[in-house]
Amino acid sequence: MKISPLAPAAFPKLPAIDGVRFAAAEAGVKYAGRSDLMLVEIAAGSAVAGVFTQSATRAAPVLWCQECLGAGGAEGYAVLVNSGNANAFTGARGTEAVLDCTAGVAARLNLPKNHVFMSSTGVIGEVLPQERILAKLDELTANLSGTAAEQAARAIMTTDTFAKGAVQTVDLDGKKVTLTGFAKGSGMIAPDMATMLVYIFTDASVSSSLWQSMVADCAANSFNCITVDSDTSTSDTLLAFATGKADTAMIEPETAAESAFRSALNKLMLDLAHQVVRDGEGASKFVEVQVSGAANDRAAHIIGKAIADSPLVKTAIAGEDPNWGRVVMAVGKSGQRADRDRLIIRFGDITVAENGWVSPGYSEEQGARYMQQQDLVIGVDLGIGTGTATIWTCDLTHDYISINADYRS
Amino acid sequence: MKISPLAPAAFPKLPAIDGVRFAAAEAGVKYAGRSDLMLVEIAAGSAVAGVFTQSATRAAPVLWCQECLGAGGAEGYAVLVNSGNANAFTGARGTEAVLDCTAGVAARLNLPKNHVFMSSTGVIGEVLPQERILAKLDELTANLSGTAAEQAARAIMTTDTFAKGAVQTVDLDGKKVTLTGFAKGSGMIAPDMATMLVYIFTDASVSSSLWQSMVADCAANSFNCITVDSDTSTSDTLLAFATGKADTAMIEPETAAESAFRSALNKLMLDLAHQVVRDGEGASKFVEVQVSGAANDRAAHIIGKAIADSPLVKTAIAGEDPNWGRVVMAVGKSGQRADRDRLIIRFGDITVAENGWVSPGYSEEQGARYMQQQDLVIGVDLGIGTGTATIWTCDLTHDYISINADYRS
Repeated sequence: MKISPLAPAAFPKLPAIDGVRFAAAEAGVKYAGRSDLMLVEIAAGSAVAGVFTQSATRAAPVLWCQECLGAGGAEGYAVLVNSGNANAFTGARGTEAVLDCTAGVAARLNLPKNHVFMSSTGVIGEVLPQERILAKLDELTANLSGTAAEQAARAIMTTDTFAKGAVQTVDLDGKKVTLTGFAKGSGMIAPDMATMLVYIFTDASVSSSLWQSMVADCAANSFNCITVDSDTSTSDTLLAFATGKADTAMIEPETAAESAFRSALNKLMLDLAHQVVRDGEGASKFVEVQVSGAANDRAAHIIGKAIADSPLVKTAIAGEDPNWGRVVMAVGKSGQRADRDRLIIRFGDITVAENGWVSPGYSEEQGARYMQQQDLVIGVDLGIGTGTATIWTCDLTHDYISINADYRS
Repeated sequence: MKISPLAPAAFPKLPAIDGVRFAAAEAGVKYAGRSDLMLVEIAAGSAVAGVFTQSATRAAPVLWCQECLGAGGAEGYAVLVNSGNANAFTGARGTEAVLDCTAGVAARLNLPKNHVFMSSTGVIGEVLPQERILAKLDELTANLSGTAAEQAARAIMTTDTFAKGAVQTVDLDGKKVTLTGFAKGSGMIAPDMATMLVYIFTDASVSSSLWQSMVADCAANSFNCITVDSDTSTSDTLLAFATGKADTAMIEPETAAESAFRSALNKLMLDLAHQVVRDGEGASKFVEVQVSGAANDRAAHIIGKAIADSPLVKTAIAGEDPNWGRVVMAVGKSGQRADRDRLIIRFGDITVAENGWVSPGYSEEQGARYMQQQDLVIGVDLGIGTGTATIWTCDLTHDYISINADYRS
């Protein structure tokens, strides 16, 4: 598969996080000749946080993760992830597969069973060939290493054309704290209070409750603001671990340390979220939709999503057509309050439409030239309030159809 | 442009409706070498009903039609429609164009100005070249004829690959009453309490209030249950006229006559709505999504739309891939109540999934064979209530991208 033209130049170098070890293996769940299974071990005493899909048909591993998240206990954690099969809509056998695989990891790493999270991503509705996974657990546990994050990131890819990693550092008490993370996701991307699969690690010290609140807030501003195709996965999972091994003071709420750390966490998540959009199935353009002047922030978010999800807006962008009329249409269909005569539409810095009509200074040639850029900003100001939102998306191209008209076959 | 493979064999023969005359002309609004303007004259004493887009950015002609609908008076009506330009988001000049054009018709047909409806369909945000329309009004009024409905239907097409007409007859008091109608629409189809452009005529006698109520009810069950691309037009307009010239008794509410007439009206609208889906941009499959067992009818409708609007479901259908996991995903993302273990999914008569997993009797080959049909039924039973809904849609193909990535250029 050709790599997305929007891909970053290279996978970033992810520094080791004290207390976190990774391993990857080729289990042959579905794919041949590539890794498709990864294990992460997180040291005892770590804080864990998670955000999950709100789908009513969420997969067995997601339900298990939600159960584990409430387990408590100071023991360490593990995360087992396979690609190629989502173990979604697989009934009681799906649940059994999760219990068998996580019990296998728990026994080998001497962990409570409900401290072993599991995620599965790939085709929906087919039995997970758990024996292929169980057969690799010895190899995985033997190979655990602090520097194998990239291998782990590669093992969880499905239709992704590149592995997605990110790193941030922040100074706390004069000491460096590091955050790393990786993600997979390319299609079925319209997260609902969660995201595709994302794993984040830090050596900072933070209570579980503050960690959960920061992770959920940052996910709302990053992963919940992206959309590739308006379709929400049954398997969206974000798990974040803080080992506390940097030996910095515990981060307390509403302190300068919390603010600095939160900002780094937010940047890390935005970086990963943008990479998911840049690997959107068939994407040739990266689009930021900036909404302002809406009745409130929620209205702005809905309007931004209506624009970013509109097949007609997305195909116009694919065709480099400055068809701002379709942006007007999408604002109109959002169901949110808008006043045609106060609406301002911008492409980058170019004011395209205002006062209920095309802007006097705008020329079609100007718009067409702008649309040739790879990274685009569509600005919409409703002119009726102070609500704002930013949504990131990609265009809708022939390659999206090609990828999805025969993904399973 | 190649005609949709789902098109009916021919445009139906639309019998004349006493009291209704049509004309079409080539005004060159945007297209060359084809008709793009049509006029309908409706006799004095007729009842009128209308349903319009709920878009917050609805076009100038829609706002004008809504004003006219409340005008009252026993004088006749006229409808002027151009294709090639939607006169949407065109500010004060857009409103002036509507007033000038409708006044021109009113003067020639001796009608009150607010008895002349207007619709415009085509590109958004460009000034309507009204002088080209005004120059054709003499020709149009001179050519009015009871048998020119098909010519009128052809004049309002944009990306449509075939003209859409329908006819129904019903016996009232032993006399035949006729309903005819035509529609345009192919993309930007996800009507919201309205539809693309639809014009319906009958010689039955009915009060304006009952007519409005019947038209709105039938639109809710037909046009509001179709979707091509989830995008809602700024210009959706349905206008329906009842001339009373069949010389049958006035149709009264809650009578056998009303029931028979309503049934015919509903059939007529469903016929037109299905033709719009069959001409969905790039469509190669016609899909009926049947939802049952939902918490209530509204939940069933939302679930049906989530399935019918899902790009992943639609591309799977285009690829003839019986990928029922994507149907599960779409149910899950709808936000409506669902229980994974009670969900039943059917392709036609084939039970694909039940009890939270693939059905024991189902084989992939069976599903793949079914998906090769041109007309498909996807059935979803939620198993938790009595809510039902039926939604009609088409698949998402390469041709949709081709049509929309350069529609304006």
